[in-house]
Amino acid sequence: MSDSTAQSSTSGPRAKDPGRVLIFDTTLRDGEQSPGASLNLEEKLTIAQQLSRLGVDIIEAGFPFASPGDFEAVQRIARSVGSQDGPTICGLARAARADIKACAEAIAPAARSRIHTFIATSDIHLRHKLRKSRKEVLEIVPEMVAYACSFCADVEFSCEDAGRSDPEFLYPVIEAAIAAGATTINIPDTVGYTTPAEFGALIAAIDANVPSIDQAVISVHGHNDLGLAVANFLEAVKNGARQLECTINGIGERAGNAALEELVMAMHVRRQYFNLFLGRPLECPDPLTAIRTEEIHKTSRLVSNLTGMSVQPNKAIVGANAFAHESGIHQDGVLKNRLTYEIMDARTVGLMDNRISLGKLSGRRAFRSRLEALGYNLSNEDLNAAFARFKELADRKRDITDRDLEAIVSDQSQQVEATFSLELVQVSCGTNMHPTATVTLRNIDGEDHTAAAIGTGPVDAVCQALNHLAAVPNELVEFSVKSVTAGIDSMGEVSIRLRHGGRLYSGYGADTDVVVASAKAFVSALNRLVATTRAAGLNPQQAEDCLEAGRGV
Amino acid sequence: MSDSTAQSSTSGPRAKDPGRVLIFDTTLRDGEQSPGASLNLEEKLTIAQQLSRLGVDIIEAGFPFASPGDFEAVQRIARSVGSQDGPTICGLARAARADIKACAEAIAPAARSRIHTFIATSDIHLRHKLRKSRKEVLEIVPEMVAYACSFCADVEFSCEDAGRSDPEFLYPVIEAAIAAGATTINIPDTVGYTTPAEFGALIAAIDANVPSIDQAVISVHGHNDLGLAVANFLEAVKNGARQLECTINGIGERAGNAALEELVMAMHVRRQYFNLFLGRPLECPDPLTAIRTEEIHKTSRLVSNLTGMSVQPNKAIVGANAFAHESGIHQDGVLKNRLTYEIMDARTVGLMDNRISLGKLSGRRAFRSRLEALGYNLSNEDLNAAFARFKELADRKRDITDRDLEAIVSDQSQQVEATFSLELVQVSCGTNMHPTATVTLRNIDGEDHTAAAIGTGPVDAVCQALNHLAAVPNELVEFSVKSVTAGIDSMGEVSIRLRHGGRLYSGYGADTDVVVASAKAFVSALNRLVATTRAAGLNPQQAEDCLEAGRGV
Repeated sequence: MSDSTAQSSTSGPRAKDPGRVLIFDTTLRDGEQSPGASLNLEEKLTIAQQLSRLGVDIIEAGFPFASPGDFEAVQRIARSVGSQDGPTICGLARAARADIKACAEAIAPAARSRIHTFIATSDIHLRHKLRKSRKEVLEIVPEMVAYACSFCADVEFSCEDAGRSDPEFLYPVIEAAIAAGATTINIPDTVGYTTPAEFGALIAAIDANVPSIDQAVISVHGHNDLGLAVANFLEAVKNGARQLECTINGIGERAGNAALEELVMAMHVRRQYFNLFLGRPLECPDPLTAIRTEEIHKTSRLVSNLTGMSVQPNKAIVGANAFAHESGIHQDGVLKNRLTYEIMDARTVGLMDNRISLGKLSGRRAFRSRLEALGYNLSNEDLNAAFARFKELADRKRDITDRDLEAIVSDQSQQVEATFSLELVQVSCGTNMHPTATVTLRNIDGEDHTAAAIGTGPVDAVCQALNHLAAVPNELVEFSVKSVTAGIDSMGEVSIRLRHGGRLYSGYGADTDVVVASAKAFVSALNRLVATTRAAGLNPQQAEDCLEAGRGV
Repeated sequence: MSDSTAQSSTSGPRAKDPGRVLIFDTTLRDGEQSPGASLNLEEKLTIAQQLSRLGVDIIEAGFPFASPGDFEAVQRIARSVGSQDGPTICGLARAARADIKACAEAIAPAARSRIHTFIATSDIHLRHKLRKSRKEVLEIVPEMVAYACSFCADVEFSCEDAGRSDPEFLYPVIEAAIAAGATTINIPDTVGYTTPAEFGALIAAIDANVPSIDQAVISVHGHNDLGLAVANFLEAVKNGARQLECTINGIGERAGNAALEELVMAMHVRRQYFNLFLGRPLECPDPLTAIRTEEIHKTSRLVSNLTGMSVQPNKAIVGANAFAHESGIHQDGVLKNRLTYEIMDARTVGLMDNRISLGKLSGRRAFRSRLEALGYNLSNEDLNAAFARFKELADRKRDITDRDLEAIVSDQSQQVEATFSLELVQVSCGTNMHPTATVTLRNIDGEDHTAAAIGTGPVDAVCQALNHLAAVPNELVEFSVKSVTAGIDSMGEVSIRLRHGGRLYSGYGADTDVVVASAKAFVSALNRLVATTRAAGLNPQQAEDCLEAGRGV
């Protein structure tokens, strides 16, 4: 291990130090590549706004060349969230001119923007994916980094699959990227293969062996296939890395990325330990990142709601049980327990902040301000629609909690760009009955059609009837329901995943009636399927090709 | 960091080496302490049998002194699973005579058994929890370890909160425990506070500073509050630990324990890296643990089904997306991708093994043998009941998959020890309707009572009607539904958590009709609540007190 080496090597080059650990959030790029987690434009914007409130330094907003939809999302986020005091807005681009140009255009509206370009450096990727020699890669890197710099002063370069690359090849590649103008060098453990000691040693070796490393910030990116991503990153910080690429709830390809909340809270709780590695005095009280930790829980829920990616109860920091001492269990002697069994206060991550409840008599202003506190900034039109649904719910349910509000808004934002809209659901079911559903679906021309169907259960019956009317082939691969709040009169949130042509489409619906929520979720997934199929029709090859190439960073 | 130290210190004492890394599974003890995850006797037995098939070395089956139910479960597991070639069966006991004696009796039927006794060693626990001096603790340890050894040759001793204990105090405590006969010394990071480098250094320091350490195996236990438990354990292995205390899916108190599947697969995938730390040649092909990795996925699902603790899609190794390349997405070029983006073959963890489906014409023998392959060994009576339900399902659904079978059996095993049984459910609901339910509940005297209720949705209506009939006060805190298989005609699994008197009670139900499944789950949770309230009535103080003391190991 290289801890002592890294600490004592005062003579060699040291990577550029931004004075704290930068948080580079890739929820909207790598996170969105989670199977079934695709987000629409409005949802991406909502998440980007919350990430800005959370205090991330850089938002990787997407992969502009991958599709017109991705381009538009990055551009919108650059325009609305990339303000002077907001985060840097970054786009991903392969080391190719068309990619870099599209990226530069998409991020241009941001006050501070970054191009993130990459190429693989491991022999296994060179041989099987790129079919290029090391020499060829070493020529492409400076050329493409320089091209990116011609658009944007802030350029990040990634050595894809660095974790399995020969360090002796990494050094000249990094050197070439820096010489061409890259100001951040990212080291990804693309396949989640390395252990903390190895990954830390790799960062220390880069720090020690790249002569110009003092001109760039070292960044890390990694996947959680062996459950080690967070530990790998913390070891990297100890050895000189000053930017961490992570996602909310650790979502992403396969087992996902390093979880932002775990990284930030590990450095928060163990500040004294990490202070020394950042060259600070042991007792230095300054935070190690710019994250507002009390926004963590809210952000986690927002991302889970909008992506449909659930968070398990025993997930660190943001799982339902993570602070179980706070949840009314073993309330006795909690003060004694705080000292003996707790290392974090739940309030630090914003967990005790959601006690305000609205009711029947709450006005539009209270409603709007609560939504804003939750991360939702709605247009007037959307606010009116949401307020109407709030009033409707308040007629049935006495206390409307934050989770109910989130459900209302999530449900609404999923119903945009609708080809089909659900007009009526009626169901009867039970033991010893044939579950029967009647549904009315309005198509894009405003025509209503009604059908009835029998199913193995009420949801099956509803979906059968909807499928009959929509006539879009699909296969249901996942169906899950959660009550959004305690209490049996609460809203139910339904997430559905459909498969069509080898792709997954998720849908979301919320209602106090779980069958109605299921119908809504199914229609929202159908709408996505239809919209994506239509968009992909424009240039399917290009989109597929880019996703293929980009998914491994 | 101490890697090099640990490797080069050939002169000092080295902890006892069992020749591989022992896997000590505490799913049934620490895992079951997850809020809401309580298991009944049959479920514990089913999990213990599957753990034995998985090849764990030691099963910590419970905390016998905590309650008569815990005692009985440990004893039953010792009798049925603790065979000559089966795992060692272990029980937990505080360092107190009554605890140790109860533990010894409970584990006695096993061919190989172990008493695991513990006391806290951190100053913070000594001061606030035990209210004892270091000197007093140092006297209790040898006395209680010797007492345990008077019953059982295999005794493990844990220094609770070792991660925050003064190492200078740990050394004499460990020395005393070994002198009194302890053969395994466990070092828990009780609050999940340490980082991998620190935890590895602690293990190395114990290895170097306890003169008699060569007479005991060093074990580690840890919680995942900062997301570092797995990395901490792997670092401990590098520094001399040879037993890992872990749980399936990483369940347990708060953010849970180190996940068995992540530890085992990290050492499997990175065997060459770890070989050196175990003193093996680099290329040594022998597995580092005795785990049958192809049983991992099955075990994960069994534990998730029976505890009601969901696994998030991006969970490493066992999440639905962990091997997403295998799931029909991006099937093109999969051979190319295997090399470039995969470090594990899904078959290694038993993922591709569940393709056999049963149908209408499948006989009892095929049904039984498939259930056995899935980890369920049913009595003849239970098999008959399950087979009847299977036939009923086969009438409605063409292909019955493994997940359907699991749902049938899980549902059935949850309906045992019933005070109430559900006889009829009838529901009508939809948009612009008042959801209305009619239910018939049979009480313990065999009397049927029927009630109707209106709710905010069909599930609410059913629960209102059931609550009216059962008249047991409770508060619903969680409700979730999953479809168990792809396809809209599939079974729905419902998990419910109720709160009563500051405790959580979970219920589980499965049916193709989600409303019927919800009713079953609600009734099963009510039955648990009633059973537990009755049992706790015997000696509530004792049970509470023990759980309190034991939960921090």
